[in-house]
Amino acid sequence: MPEEFESGMDNHETIRPSGGLDNSVYIGPKPFMNYVTAIVMQFTTKNASEVIIKARGKFISRAVDVCEVAAKRFLEGSVSVKDIKIGSEEFTNKEGRQVRVSTIDIVLIRN
Amino acid sequence: MPEEFESGMDNHETIRPSGGLDNSVYIGPKPFMNYVTAIVMQFTTKNASEVIIKARGKFISRAVDVCEVAAKRFLEGSVSVKDIKIGSEEFTNKEGRQVRVSTIDIVLIRN
Repeated sequence: MPEEFESGMDNHETIRPSGGLDNSVYIGPKPFMNYVTAIVMQFTTKNASEVIIKARGKFISRAVDVCEVAAKRFLEGSVSVKDIKIGSEEFTNKEGRQVRVSTIDIVLIRN
Repeated sequence: MPEEFESGMDNHETIRPSGGLDNSVYIGPKPFMNYVTAIVMQFTTKNASEVIIKARGKFISRAVDVCEVAAKRFLEGSVSVKDIKIGSEEFTNKEGRQVRVSTIDIVLIRN
């Protein structure tokens, strides 16, 4: 398990799993519009055909908010939600306990 | 718009839209296991073939947690996530401002 997990829930957004794609946007505690802008830029200036919004734990609600604002306000009509996956990750925390955290991946595609 | 909205975020779980099915479980601030138990009971004692987990705003993260624990720990191998939908609802709050809240519907089905 990557040692970043040990730094706890507040650092979830700093975790960048190896093998992650450049068109993934990880939702964390930064200002809301940072994430919306990152997604819009992927589709516009970076010409991505697909963007994956990823979040864990308490940031899952925020990921849905970010997705809704990006897709329905800023990119209205030009992108759609292709797929949503939920899952769990287990890891051992500093105190040696097994901890489970939920995850979400929201795949946005260009229409 | 239903006036329940006016009582604010903390009462999201008390909102039961008309036309909602009996096999829907609305996630709110009650103890976590209440919701897990409600889902497990739907599939076991009530013999439902499908259960819809619904949440809004900050409770979306909790809905994913509840779903993961119900489906992977208590009902392991016997239910699957069939579909996940996200959306938004707009309403006017007490102060007369237009407010947007994200929603999630997670459909669990018996295998």
